[in-house]
Amino acid sequence: MLKRIPSLNKLVHALGKLPGIGPKSALRLAFYLLKSSREEIDELKEALVAIKENIKLCSSCFSYTENEEICYICSDLHRRDDLLCVVQQSSDIPQIETSGVFRGRYHVLHGSLSPLEGVHPKDLKIKSLLIRIETSLHTDSPVTEVILALDANLEGDTTSLYLAKLLQERNIKVTRIAHGVPIGGNIDYIDHRTLGKALENRVTL
Amino acid sequence: MLKRIPSLNKLVHALGKLPGIGPKSALRLAFYLLKSSREEIDELKEALVAIKENIKLCSSCFSYTENEEICYICSDLHRRDDLLCVVQQSSDIPQIETSGVFRGRYHVLHGSLSPLEGVHPKDLKIKSLLIRIETSLHTDSPVTEVILALDANLEGDTTSLYLAKLLQERNIKVTRIAHGVPIGGNIDYIDHRTLGKALENRVTL
Repeated sequence: MLKRIPSLNKLVHALGKLPGIGPKSALRLAFYLLKSSREEIDELKEALVAIKENIKLCSSCFSYTENEEICYICSDLHRRDDLLCVVQQSSDIPQIETSGVFRGRYHVLHGSLSPLEGVHPKDLKIKSLLIRIETSLHTDSPVTEVILALDANLEGDTTSLYLAKLLQERNIKVTRIAHGVPIGGNIDYIDHRTLGKALENRVTL
Repeated sequence: MLKRIPSLNKLVHALGKLPGIGPKSALRLAFYLLKSSREEIDELKEALVAIKENIKLCSSCFSYTENEEICYICSDLHRRDDLLCVVQQSSDIPQIETSGVFRGRYHVLHGSLSPLEGVHPKDLKIKSLLIRIETSLHTDSPVTEVILALDANLEGDTTSLYLAKLLQERNIKVTRIAHGVPIGGNIDYIDHRTLGKALENRVTL
């Protein structure tokens, strides 16, 4: 059927490229959009155009910002300047923000080191991280601790080790967010590596 | 974070309206699109515009057709004219087509009867179905059997009963696709109503 309705086929193809959207979901979404009103289609279309036109990277932390040079977190005067949390991508920031525990600044690497996939230090915002920290040391509010909040996988660990080495050479305290049993997690169902980390990183009560 | 990046917020909102896309998926998709190239965004945008501009309803079966008045199935000379399969929506047609069993024509109702939700016979393509069958009776290739392939739920059953009554009054043979155990289905996991139907509709071997 799709071959005979080329416009529908193109939409299914374009939707199928999105993460987590398989061929069946793409078809279902396309049929839904086909039945949608002109207004709904326009809303989606204009939202797509707007993100490309209005959103750019913050020149300080490299997260996203709209209409401003500096993002709302970097320009917030009520946050601590001495704590810097390094994340892989901008979408990690709202996750950490909703925890409500961190009130420092962020730095977005835009990826993690992966020699196999050809991602090297120069491809990430690492040089700008070092410059940012270095610059802060000559101000009234120097960075005293860098918290690495990277994914708990091979690439995340590689990046953490690489950054820790670079920063420790510069005498900056580097910490990493804890691995352990998730809140609400049942020990029966936790994998042995996580459980090992949870035991190693046990906390005195 | 979203409140501070209104364009991103609007896209998340628009994506969240799509079926099967919850708030978390919408956010993930929006961040993916934010990182996508201009070309990818344009591809999706143009595909959205194209479906509204190029696709319309077939004037015979009310499925979708592109650039033609009559869809490719209605204009196919190699299909049987005597069998008419009634479906709720166009997306059901490719499903039935891939089974490879049916080589007749289709008729799309664009919904199912639901008095609770205010969907009445006049809101569906029922009158046009009757006219289509009536007209066929005066040609060389009359419709001799109407197969109802509607959803196996309350609305689908209501619609099937309503159509069966209307068509039987006109002396048209009406059949309904079988309910039963899905192929590959394990009897342990089948609900009792399906199993009851499967027993009722048992087939002599």
